[in-house]
Amino acid sequence: MNDAEVAPVLEEGEVGLVEYHDFVSEEPFAFEEGGELPGFTLRYETYGKLNAARDNAIFIFHALSGDHHCAGVYSLQDAKPGWWNNMIGPGKPIDTSKYFVLCSNCLGGCQGSTGPSSINPATGRRFGLSFPQVSVRDMVRAQSRLLDHLGIETLHCAIGGSMGGMQALQWAIEYPDRVRSLIAMATTSRQSAQAIAFNEVGRCAIVQDPGWHEGDYEPGQGPNLGLAVARMMAHITYLSDEGLDRKFGRVRRRERESAGAGGYFDVEFEVESYLRYQGKSFVNRFDANSYLYISKALDRFDLGQGGPIEEVVDKMQARALVVGFTSDWLFPPRQNREIVHAMIRAGKNASYAEIDMDLGHDSFLVRAPALYELVSGFLAADEHLPRAHA
Amino acid sequence: MNDAEVAPVLEEGEVGLVEYHDFVSEEPFAFEEGGELPGFTLRYETYGKLNAARDNAIFIFHALSGDHHCAGVYSLQDAKPGWWNNMIGPGKPIDTSKYFVLCSNCLGGCQGSTGPSSINPATGRRFGLSFPQVSVRDMVRAQSRLLDHLGIETLHCAIGGSMGGMQALQWAIEYPDRVRSLIAMATTSRQSAQAIAFNEVGRCAIVQDPGWHEGDYEPGQGPNLGLAVARMMAHITYLSDEGLDRKFGRVRRRERESAGAGGYFDVEFEVESYLRYQGKSFVNRFDANSYLYISKALDRFDLGQGGPIEEVVDKMQARALVVGFTSDWLFPPRQNREIVHAMIRAGKNASYAEIDMDLGHDSFLVRAPALYELVSGFLAADEHLPRAHA
Repeated sequence: MNDAEVAPVLEEGEVGLVEYHDFVSEEPFAFEEGGELPGFTLRYETYGKLNAARDNAIFIFHALSGDHHCAGVYSLQDAKPGWWNNMIGPGKPIDTSKYFVLCSNCLGGCQGSTGPSSINPATGRRFGLSFPQVSVRDMVRAQSRLLDHLGIETLHCAIGGSMGGMQALQWAIEYPDRVRSLIAMATTSRQSAQAIAFNEVGRCAIVQDPGWHEGDYEPGQGPNLGLAVARMMAHITYLSDEGLDRKFGRVRRRERESAGAGGYFDVEFEVESYLRYQGKSFVNRFDANSYLYISKALDRFDLGQGGPIEEVVDKMQARALVVGFTSDWLFPPRQNREIVHAMIRAGKNASYAEIDMDLGHDSFLVRAPALYELVSGFLAADEHLPRAHA
Repeated sequence: MNDAEVAPVLEEGEVGLVEYHDFVSEEPFAFEEGGELPGFTLRYETYGKLNAARDNAIFIFHALSGDHHCAGVYSLQDAKPGWWNNMIGPGKPIDTSKYFVLCSNCLGGCQGSTGPSSINPATGRRFGLSFPQVSVRDMVRAQSRLLDHLGIETLHCAIGGSMGGMQALQWAIEYPDRVRSLIAMATTSRQSAQAIAFNEVGRCAIVQDPGWHEGDYEPGQGPNLGLAVARMMAHITYLSDEGLDRKFGRVRRRERESAGAGGYFDVEFEVESYLRYQGKSFVNRFDANSYLYISKALDRFDLGQGGPIEEVVDKMQARALVVGFTSDWLFPPRQNREIVHAMIRAGKNASYAEIDMDLGHDSFLVRAPALYELVSGFLAADEHLPRAHA
């Protein structure tokens, strides 16, 4: 290690070294679709300082495969900062010199929060499929206890992309007086048939892997091949035709040229190598049962609960910004736009912005100055407005 | 059986009862990428009559999962006509009262033509992975022997969609003086990175299934679960977000309502049920090794062989019509349009047509009056033009 190597993560404008915390709720938690836990743990991180009025908190919500570690690094040797490090930090769009930023691993997850891979205290064994069915609303209700624990009554803003956007929307409806504003990106008010279809293929790949064993497996010995296939497929849906063409085109791997005929179905194109790597590395960090549970929560997500969303957004008090990306074909612009139109019809303060980027669904995660300006402007505007709940 | 039930397949305007034939080539066949067979079989069907001049033949090429049975029925009890029965028949766009229509199962396939599931005469065992690597060009070269066998020098038209479109294009370049016109639909001159990526996920699902056994399995005992997953995923890419939403939306299966908690990851939404059915029924009719070989042939397909396609289309003598579909995101309009632009730049007689349909890639297979008019008009126009090779 030398200073030059670690400098970027510690330099001005970076969150720098961070650590995670575990919040343990010891109150029983009843799940929306039935089932109960005697309590649960949420792993979370915070950046920046909560002000004296305790009203500068921003809650960040992660996507299906994300976690609570959205900014900073765990050590000077840690080469990979949190997943939204480009967005969060002092002077960055979500400015940690002004805001107290908070992110927790979702209920049902596998990165420290209670989920199917957690030990059931009643049996001493992993929950597996005995874990209750979890919904986006359950995730939000669990997060509200963390907010209570931190002594925060009202969020300055609820922010997330993809499944994180669903949570931001759900927060504003579930706890209207606790959310002053929300930013939802690359998201939807209800999972479309195509999105359900892709999730179902991923679930089939997992449950058909003999290693799944009805969800009863030890870490590392689960349906690794099936989970990798599920992730490879899902990863394609996060990108775009144009983006993949620009990044990989039809470039072939050099190694394969010298491979024997036995390797006919081995990796040939660079894009295949990239995808296989995505599949393999995912298996090392994600639990297959959590993938089943969370993907199912996504499929069941329907903000309007089967009806038009006007009725539910009517409860909302938050100002809203919804951002769609032109090349996102998983949650296409149309689905994002519809949310704002419903909000406007319900008389809410809501804006839709569409950003022209060709990186697909994952556009919200990458460097995007146009997005940065929308986020920082929207967050700052709130400071000059009368607050619904001071 | 009563007359009312069978009437539709036999009534005027239908091809009616058909049977397949096997063409056996006993000349050695050298594959483009190495390897040789002492001969091969192509299963094929024909509809209509070859005229005295033997110049009214139309060769139809099927897509990845298709076969030689593109029109008519095999018996009066046969409820399912060939895959392009809506397009082919007396008075239909591909008019069997005027044309002699021909379709063969591709080399490498599993519906009667020689492929990995065929018995290797040298060993008495199935080829499996010892089958030579097959390319779209190999398929076309094998088809040319069938054409020789039938005594047909020149095709009135070469027609296909998806992989069939690739073959139509390849025919016009490989045998310029044997193709007077071509219609390629929902196709591409080279497989994009995204299309390769989806095929790679399908292949991974197959080869990771313990039933695959390095391609060495008996029919029915192969990687059925992996093949079903591959098909389910591929099937989504043949449809569209809008089409799926209109057909299935978020409608739930009625049966599941009463299912126990153990069925949490069982079928819940109608779209899941539909997809699982697609996967299961595919396993009953398709060989996993053929799927590996043919999907690889698609990925390697590059009409321009790594260079601009202007150079290769320069050889072409056929008039060309290329048809793209607005909602096709597997081989999007842009990829279809590019082919025609290259042909025009090379001074060829070529037209691009784009049809506004929301059924995705499979639009070319469904009832589409706009497509019918283009096809029948294009085929008839040829009759009034001077022929390059009389």
